[in-house]
Amino acid sequence: MAPVGVLLWRSLKAYQVFGANTDVGKTIFTTLLCNASRRFRPDEQISFLKPVSTGSVDEADDGHIKKFASQTSTKTLFQFEDPVSPHLAATISKQSTPADHVVLETIRHHAASRALDGPGWLFLETAGGVHSPGPSGTTQADLYAPLRLPVVLIGDSKLGGISQTISAFESLRIRGYDIESVLLFENGHYDNHSYLSEYFAGEHGISVEAFLPPPLRVSDRDSDIAAMIEYYEKASSTEKARSVVDNLESRHKDRISRIEAMASEAYDTIWYPFTQHGRLSPSRITTITSAHGDYFQTLVPNSSSNPSSQSLLQPTFDGSASWWTQGLGHANPKLTLAASYAAGRYGHVMFAETIHEPALELAKTLLETMNNPRFSRVFYSDNGSTGMEVAVKMALRATRERYNLESGDKLHVLGLRGSYHGDTMGAMDSTEPSVYNEKVEWYDGKGYWFDYPTVICDNGSWQVQVPRSLEGHLGATQEYGSMSEIFDINRRRQSEVYRSYESYIRTSLERLVREGRRFGALVMEPLVLGAGGMIMVDPLFQRAFVDVVRNSADIFSEGGPTSEDPDPQAWTGLPVIFDEVFTGLTRLGPLSSSSFLGVGPDISVHAKLLTGGLVPLCATLASTSIFKAFESTDKTDALLHGHSYTAHPIGCQVALESVKELRRIEEGSTWDWAKQSWKEASGQASKKGQSGHRQPVVWSAWSESFVSEVSKQPQVSGVWALGSVLAIYMKDAVSGYTSNSAARVQEALSKGVSSSGDGSWNVHSRVLGNVLYMMASQTTKREDIERLEGLLRKAIE
Amino acid sequence: MAPVGVLLWRSLKAYQVFGANTDVGKTIFTTLLCNASRRFRPDEQISFLKPVSTGSVDEADDGHIKKFASQTSTKTLFQFEDPVSPHLAATISKQSTPADHVVLETIRHHAASRALDGPGWLFLETAGGVHSPGPSGTTQADLYAPLRLPVVLIGDSKLGGISQTISAFESLRIRGYDIESVLLFENGHYDNHSYLSEYFAGEHGISVEAFLPPPLRVSDRDSDIAAMIEYYEKASSTEKARSVVDNLESRHKDRISRIEAMASEAYDTIWYPFTQHGRLSPSRITTITSAHGDYFQTLVPNSSSNPSSQSLLQPTFDGSASWWTQGLGHANPKLTLAASYAAGRYGHVMFAETIHEPALELAKTLLETMNNPRFSRVFYSDNGSTGMEVAVKMALRATRERYNLESGDKLHVLGLRGSYHGDTMGAMDSTEPSVYNEKVEWYDGKGYWFDYPTVICDNGSWQVQVPRSLEGHLGATQEYGSMSEIFDINRRRQSEVYRSYESYIRTSLERLVREGRRFGALVMEPLVLGAGGMIMVDPLFQRAFVDVVRNSADIFSEGGPTSEDPDPQAWTGLPVIFDEVFTGLTRLGPLSSSSFLGVGPDISVHAKLLTGGLVPLCATLASTSIFKAFESTDKTDALLHGHSYTAHPIGCQVALESVKELRRIEEGSTWDWAKQSWKEASGQASKKGQSGHRQPVVWSAWSESFVSEVSKQPQVSGVWALGSVLAIYMKDAVSGYTSNSAARVQEALSKGVSSSGDGSWNVHSRVLGNVLYMMASQTTKREDIERLEGLLRKAIE
Repeated sequence: MAPVGVLLWRSLKAYQVFGANTDVGKTIFTTLLCNASRRFRPDEQISFLKPVSTGSVDEADDGHIKKFASQTSTKTLFQFEDPVSPHLAATISKQSTPADHVVLETIRHHAASRALDGPGWLFLETAGGVHSPGPSGTTQADLYAPLRLPVVLIGDSKLGGISQTISAFESLRIRGYDIESVLLFENGHYDNHSYLSEYFAGEHGISVEAFLPPPLRVSDRDSDIAAMIEYYEKASSTEKARSVVDNLESRHKDRISRIEAMASEAYDTIWYPFTQHGRLSPSRITTITSAHGDYFQTLVPNSSSNPSSQSLLQPTFDGSASWWTQGLGHANPKLTLAASYAAGRYGHVMFAETIHEPALELAKTLLETMNNPRFSRVFYSDNGSTGMEVAVKMALRATRERYNLESGDKLHVLGLRGSYHGDTMGAMDSTEPSVYNEKVEWYDGKGYWFDYPTVICDNGSWQVQVPRSLEGHLGATQEYGSMSEIFDINRRRQSEVYRSYESYIRTSLERLVREGRRFGALVMEPLVLGAGGMIMVDPLFQRAFVDVVRNSADIFSEGGPTSEDPDPQAWTGLPVIFDEVFTGLTRLGPLSSSSFLGVGPDISVHAKLLTGGLVPLCATLASTSIFKAFESTDKTDALLHGHSYTAHPIGCQVALESVKELRRIEEGSTWDWAKQSWKEASGQASKKGQSGHRQPVVWSAWSESFVSEVSKQPQVSGVWALGSVLAIYMKDAVSGYTSNSAARVQEALSKGVSSSGDGSWNVHSRVLGNVLYMMASQTTKREDIERLEGLLRKAIE
Repeated sequence: MAPVGVLLWRSLKAYQVFGANTDVGKTIFTTLLCNASRRFRPDEQISFLKPVSTGSVDEADDGHIKKFASQTSTKTLFQFEDPVSPHLAATISKQSTPADHVVLETIRHHAASRALDGPGWLFLETAGGVHSPGPSGTTQADLYAPLRLPVVLIGDSKLGGISQTISAFESLRIRGYDIESVLLFENGHYDNHSYLSEYFAGEHGISVEAFLPPPLRVSDRDSDIAAMIEYYEKASSTEKARSVVDNLESRHKDRISRIEAMASEAYDTIWYPFTQHGRLSPSRITTITSAHGDYFQTLVPNSSSNPSSQSLLQPTFDGSASWWTQGLGHANPKLTLAASYAAGRYGHVMFAETIHEPALELAKTLLETMNNPRFSRVFYSDNGSTGMEVAVKMALRATRERYNLESGDKLHVLGLRGSYHGDTMGAMDSTEPSVYNEKVEWYDGKGYWFDYPTVICDNGSWQVQVPRSLEGHLGATQEYGSMSEIFDINRRRQSEVYRSYESYIRTSLERLVREGRRFGALVMEPLVLGAGGMIMVDPLFQRAFVDVVRNSADIFSEGGPTSEDPDPQAWTGLPVIFDEVFTGLTRLGPLSSSSFLGVGPDISVHAKLLTGGLVPLCATLASTSIFKAFESTDKTDALLHGHSYTAHPIGCQVALESVKELRRIEEGSTWDWAKQSWKEASGQASKKGQSGHRQPVVWSAWSESFVSEVSKQPQVSGVWALGSVLAIYMKDAVSGYTSNSAARVQEALSKGVSSSGDGSWNVHSRVLGNVLYMMASQTTKREDIERLEGLLRKAIE
């Protein structure tokens, strides 16, 4: 099963005919369209396709077409005898029910063969109304959405037809369909045509055309047929029919020229993030026309020089999960409906001393989901960077209050080398100097960032590698039997390694404070440093860092006066901030990446997956002890941070739906197949019983055997995989952001799998210096992962 | 015409019955509901309301109810004889067509009187399908949305009915309706019930119940009636009927308890922006249950101690336009549809070296809309604060490149006192020390901020007031005949005042550079400083500032080496950044507030109204000359700023729709009534011809006479109004953010207009120290403004 591409060929003008209701004349209008395009485009091929048909073959719609549009090539792909909805007909019949992707592939295959026949038209007629279920039970509006065929909507001319037509239009529209034409029968009494013309022209720029209805059926079969022939003859030769054909043709051409112009127009007008425009060219810009599930639909390179029968678009795996945001599939109808419900109920609602339901429910849900007894408060902002600024403001103030520090002392943060927390200045200043910020005006790093041991699979062996600078303190690289052994924090906390971590960190902190530095917070991305290069930190080291900081009030207070907090959940030492923007909410498996360390922070920051890949939103969670530091009778002591769209209902409603869905996935059996491969590799299942303590299940959608195999490649210096993330370190003289070593693999992925037939697809990926990473969504299927592993193997070799 | 409140009373369980199609049994199910609630709640009042009915009175639905649910109080509000859609029937009939608000008010009035009758039920039956047009032509789904009645949706049990039911559901849902129950007839053949039960339970938690259809009609009238009586008798006494009644009752109670618990739950879990929680209490938190047009629907204070017949919700004017974001009305269906289309077409699409249509079209539209020949590039981020950080990063780098400055020199910005650009650190550092930032850790202002003359209407006279500190340089306060005289920049540029501005600014700059400061940008909010206290700056002063800076390359380069830019649109002196986040996109009238100054910036920042009040998005526009400063062959020279949701398609698509709509409003006649009052006051119409040059029309939705009148109040020190903004300066010993003087007026506005009847409404407003401001949306009606002016008059007195 290959991913299915959107149907777009220069040669083939393909339209999908949807009905606003059953019995509105879909077949008659389709026949009319076939006849009219035959008449006004006499040199072109006309094709009719009925993907799924129910009812006896004699009565079938392709029979009607054969009879009344005889020069049309007709095809029905799936035929069921019972004249009921396809999902029922499929069940009643003895035939096996075709899965959705089989229906899509079969349609695509058929359409692709039509495209080869030179200039032509394809009218694809759906069954029943827009939401009538297809064979599998998925409604047609959802089923066919990945094909993104432009739509001819047949309106309802009867009583109530205005409503049916607008509702059908909306159901299509909220799934990203482009409705190019609305056709319906004339009906002088209800005159739905007048109303709908104004409605669709005014609001949506869509033309509505009314045609005379066919003659009433008479009992004599021959006269009936003759009357229909005459009807089609007349109706299809009208100026109105010509204008419909012309309109559909020009929409088709416009669509293609628009798509083909996009890259160069973007090259002229867009200023891209993180992009050196001096090295950009229009041909390097990927034109994305839509997205569905895990795949973008992208314009194939050099499309304009390809034959007109070649597909203009191809499916492209979204290998960065759209910058790590994507979790529940592009164009997920549940998220769309959540967003539109909130838009329709509220729009935006200003959020100071007000409350609305999505914000409140999301706050309660997040507090429950994070399951951290310290947390009691949720502060909303717009993205990870702003949420981290809020977190740092919170923590520093809390520290200043607790230790009664002078306002003159600049408080610094403690962190890890290579951390990244976003691009606003406060977030940048929380990280060490690097290529991300060193050329940025006003960057002024305020902190001390520790070096640390890292986790990697090297040549088939799972290791905790200690950087040379720390070998004197922490010993040499340790080898483990499996990844899960490294994650067995409770066991490893009893080891000598942990004691060496502790003592190294404590000694370093004492030295730093002696040197005059004042600290206000510990800030870390739990387990994985994302933008810093997809570095997996030894979780035991991070745990030791938290433990030491929390036990070192003596160091940070320097023995000065300290205000007490009797709350047992209050922070000690320094407030601990976890930046879970990338690592949290199931990206690495568990809902909170803090669970890998077995310890909860005082403040955590959540974004990206929070909205499942739809709109920006960030939540900063904090403990009461942090919150109280801002409470007073003085307005200006408050946390004076806010954005106009703070807690915008759309984001909150979508996040509520996402978090619910991510929890369902995390707690359910969706990933059982993936967990199995990792359990077997580690013997984790049996060991868990022995050690008698709970630890998060350590697994990845990318198989253990694949990770191990790739780690043995000579060009590869190491690999890790966790949750939906895979990171491959390529060997390279220069490492870091400026390196280009992984670019060769990236290039091979972007070439993808071409085929002379119709199965081409490729991968859009991002690299970080010498690290190539791939990110699945939380709904990626096993077969997709396996297909990608196959391509990756070839790309790396 | 008073604003209409959402229908919610403790005593009255009101439900709106919508049909998935015409002829699905709406009236039969409504009759059944009346009978069942009568049976299972024998002590309660049962009422039926048909707001709009078409067809002969004999056949009318309330006739059916009267006949078969005889103990039900029935009412039809608007009756039209023709059995066609109400919009046609209304046209055909000789009756005058009731406007939408009249329909809503009449419904509300009727329901309110029912609520007085003690515990009871009200079933409101719609006509036709969900989108069947009401009398004015507005479809019912849109027409009734402001009432936010919970819905009983009557599903379609016939062939195609699955599709009709789901589409109807979606059309309601995207308008914020809560569908509480789906009822339909049993139909063994199509069995839509099974499919729909699974669909609605699984995806939406809504129960679907199927009831036996009524007996076939027989020709004998008496038997027919007897059969129906028996049918209702049976159907309404089933356990299924009881469970429907129980479910509707518990949903009603749940809704109320949820709403009433929100403020205290929010008090316990939310950390509010800009809010001193030490001074907060649950009773100070406004519970907003929905919003429509310019009004929130809010829980009335102390609702739990009110009689159960009293309305739980009231309309509350959104007096801050939801923190200055709102422009096209809350819950605008066009914006909702734009958002959901993009969600359905893409979800999110990562935005580095890729392009999608909404981002490209928006970029092109913004460049065209701003109509500034300097601009060629659009950089997207998530909010005004991030967009300003981007702007500052752009400008400082450009200056450093142009003047070959050492990387050691910290570049500062030039700006105005009291500026505000957002709460991320880089945005904060661009502003002078103030209550917003002085307690913020890491705040480190980097700039010099000038004092300036301000515009105000004081005691009926329009003045440019010069602060005492500048009187020596700029002379004393100037009086003008009208606001528009002050805005006649071309004329005033010829004046002595302009020359004094120029010379003061130039001299100051020379001094600052002599003192060792290096500058990298001029940063200003054109005309109005928003969060800094709604201060209107003399536009001539800002113009002089830009003019001087652009002509002072000699000062800023200090004669050092300078790289040339031959581009005639290149910046000179320093790059000029306009922060139009608040002031732009018609908030003050014109699409760009730079047009008040008659000069375009090199970089401008747009957010808030950009998405018309829906989701966060920001666009930073820049000139080629700025853009080129980042171009090289070195990756790390790029603007390394980005957010995961950069250029999210939903935001871009919504912005595209908003900007289009705002342009239509700006260029059209929407505001003619408002412009007229200001033109008359200034004699502007005639003067324009004399001076012979174009200047933006200076006007406000708030009337000139009101401004003048209020400015004469003894408690008021000054007033200004422009576009949709009104600012009233209250006299107070202490001014600035910490002041509480305007709070008294705010309190009076929040009490609003109460009435023992049903016309209560109030105003939610925000104050900035001693400044009370009010902000209309771009679609606020004249009568709303007049009503607000009336309330404001009383509140200030």
